[in-house]
Amino acid sequence: MPKESVMTLIKGAKVLTPKGVVEGNVLIEENKIAAVGDVADKSDVVIDGRKKAVIPGLFNTHTHAAMVLFRSYADDMVLHEWLEKKIWPLEAKLDSEAVYWGTKLACIEMLKSGTIFFNDMYFFPPAIAKAAEECGIRACVSAAFFDFFNPDLLEENLKKALKDLKEIEKYNVLRAIGPHAVYTVSLDGLRRAAEIAEEMDLFVHFHLAETEKEVVDFKKQHGKPITKALDEIGFLSSRLIAAHSVWLEDAEIELLGKRGVTVSHCPASNMKLCVGKAIKFEEMKKAGVNFTIGTDGAASNNNLDMLEEMKFAALLQKFHYSDPTLMKAEEVFEAATVNAARAFGLKSGVIDEGYLADLVLIDLKKPYLQPEHNLVANLIYAASSGCVDTVIVDGRIVVENGYFMGDETQEIEIIEKTAKIALDLTN
Amino acid sequence: MPKESVMTLIKGAKVLTPKGVVEGNVLIEENKIAAVGDVADKSDVVIDGRKKAVIPGLFNTHTHAAMVLFRSYADDMVLHEWLEKKIWPLEAKLDSEAVYWGTKLACIEMLKSGTIFFNDMYFFPPAIAKAAEECGIRACVSAAFFDFFNPDLLEENLKKALKDLKEIEKYNVLRAIGPHAVYTVSLDGLRRAAEIAEEMDLFVHFHLAETEKEVVDFKKQHGKPITKALDEIGFLSSRLIAAHSVWLEDAEIELLGKRGVTVSHCPASNMKLCVGKAIKFEEMKKAGVNFTIGTDGAASNNNLDMLEEMKFAALLQKFHYSDPTLMKAEEVFEAATVNAARAFGLKSGVIDEGYLADLVLIDLKKPYLQPEHNLVANLIYAASSGCVDTVIVDGRIVVENGYFMGDETQEIEIIEKTAKIALDLTN
Repeated sequence: MPKESVMTLIKGAKVLTPKGVVEGNVLIEENKIAAVGDVADKSDVVIDGRKKAVIPGLFNTHTHAAMVLFRSYADDMVLHEWLEKKIWPLEAKLDSEAVYWGTKLACIEMLKSGTIFFNDMYFFPPAIAKAAEECGIRACVSAAFFDFFNPDLLEENLKKALKDLKEIEKYNVLRAIGPHAVYTVSLDGLRRAAEIAEEMDLFVHFHLAETEKEVVDFKKQHGKPITKALDEIGFLSSRLIAAHSVWLEDAEIELLGKRGVTVSHCPASNMKLCVGKAIKFEEMKKAGVNFTIGTDGAASNNNLDMLEEMKFAALLQKFHYSDPTLMKAEEVFEAATVNAARAFGLKSGVIDEGYLADLVLIDLKKPYLQPEHNLVANLIYAASSGCVDTVIVDGRIVVENGYFMGDETQEIEIIEKTAKIALDLTN
Repeated sequence: MPKESVMTLIKGAKVLTPKGVVEGNVLIEENKIAAVGDVADKSDVVIDGRKKAVIPGLFNTHTHAAMVLFRSYADDMVLHEWLEKKIWPLEAKLDSEAVYWGTKLACIEMLKSGTIFFNDMYFFPPAIAKAAEECGIRACVSAAFFDFFNPDLLEENLKKALKDLKEIEKYNVLRAIGPHAVYTVSLDGLRRAAEIAEEMDLFVHFHLAETEKEVVDFKKQHGKPITKALDEIGFLSSRLIAAHSVWLEDAEIELLGKRGVTVSHCPASNMKLCVGKAIKFEEMKKAGVNFTIGTDGAASNNNLDMLEEMKFAALLQKFHYSDPTLMKAEEVFEAATVNAARAFGLKSGVIDEGYLADLVLIDLKKPYLQPEHNLVANLIYAASSGCVDTVIVDGRIVVENGYFMGDETQEIEIIEKTAKIALDLTN
């Protein structure tokens, strides 16, 4: 008999659709949502959705996944000491194997907390891509580079980045070029990155205006704001995912909006590393900037939990600008789902016919999700990762009963491997 | 045979002791820790501690537990609208039954996230006390009152408070009198509360300096800071648990320290309700104020998860005062354990011989708790409630395998009851 396409039915759930919460079924055909609501049971796989909510999977738009290896290794320190004495010496010892296993640990952590996509920037991109593909999570993997304002180093590192991009082409991931930031990459390096992105159809992953020092130093040296200089070299486009984007003037934000840039807000990292300010969400909304959320790396967070990050985003915004009406639950949820999907050109982040089957089943029997006055507010303000029961990425079940691939076997292997690697790195 | 005392042994765990993490066993005799380390197996009950950490149970020192009924009912609103249009109309409909079931839901939420004690202030104190006792969680229950500056109302409400205090005497809970705040209770009412506390040996549960408005209004009316006025009427003592305590001058903080007052810091609520400032932790440390942490009610949080709250405490402090070295992980953990135990006169919050057996077993196989560079930092910055495997309160196992009383049966009954009550309240 010819193989028909695989049909999966989630039965009797509370489905978070663009029209609100609908009680009913979700039918998945191969990797897409075929129907939502009162749809018939004609499927190969049936998932019991009773007492569960079905929500779009979450997108983590800025992280350094393998930094989970350094989780809680050094905290509560001033930035330069933390980097110079703790993080950089360990990073110098990293190899491809360490990044591969670290990324795998990160992937299962993300999947198990409802994240179905991550935008990564770290050393050894092929190891990242391999880990992501094997874990069945969507990813955009950057070939990151620095030039430290040295033209020779730029040539050398661009060559390496192109080699990495070539190598990750074989994996099922999106690709980006990742010029690190204006304080580590020359304007020439940034211009070249933008050109390569255009030629090779890549995303651009970049740290923008994270600290006041970065912004003040740049303006002193160049006589203009960072974003204006970036625009002059053609760096601003809808390919760009600009992490942090905290210390921006309103005119810069308008420019980001005009050029279709996506920002990735990292509230927990911003708070822990004391960047001194909350992202200007209202101005970004007004300017039409595509607003998304990321966890940053686990050395400065210290987890990759988007359910937690969404609460930090909303509360930081309200607190910093003294207005409880800012960044409403629905806006945070959109940032973590449909806005991010749009940034990466994926028809995901929404539960509706024709969208990718990137879905999370939430166990509503957790006391913290009761009563059920408002599902989205419960997700943003009350949920924690323990409520994630099932995760479906691209139509494939990757988390079942709260476990990666359905039981502890693979999780334990990954944990034991990374524990050993982390121990070796710190000894 | 004569009944011997019940012995419970936790075997082969990583035990967080005052001397650091010790690999070994914890022997519990009745309700106390009998020994820690290389102790022999001579017990009635054996708990497998492998790949688990044993930590002291957490204390939530300020909440309104039954407000879980209003969780996510109304968010992202300005304070007075939120109170007047949403919260107060629902509270007016509350009865003893609603508070009883709401508190039960809160109790299982707290236990399942590692909290073994809560300090509560809400309507129908006997219902709160009954719910807490039945759930096997430690609690301090306040007889709360307002007088709205009306002497007749003061007499009436004090009488009611005394009746409530009498009624909750039969339950296994600590008791407090709860004059609400200076903007709802007259100085005469506060003085009377302090006298009653002294006579009846009660704690005093109170909201102090939560908003700038409260502080400015008081000073305008009385010509002195709140804390000075409170000291003049004998209100400040080691019986007092002062929630929030955000808008205090340094001299007031010194006074709190001198009088042995405990503060309960509620960072998530402070952020969500936009109080405009972070508590002055460094000044409080210097002044010797007993510093603890609370979640506040679930209408302004929206959960009662101390693992999450501890992260908010540390990150808010660092961010607001732009110093990553402030409120270190160990300090947050002490605030949520031993400091709070001290406030309520309980020999708890520490794992050592002779202390109360108030313990939580943490599942270290959660990806977000790996690798294990630093257990305390992982608990503060990376943990979420899903890692809570077993909870022992006063020597009794109340959460097992992550479930209240070991399985879903009781949880589901409580969830269904509260769901119905919450629905009725909002219809």
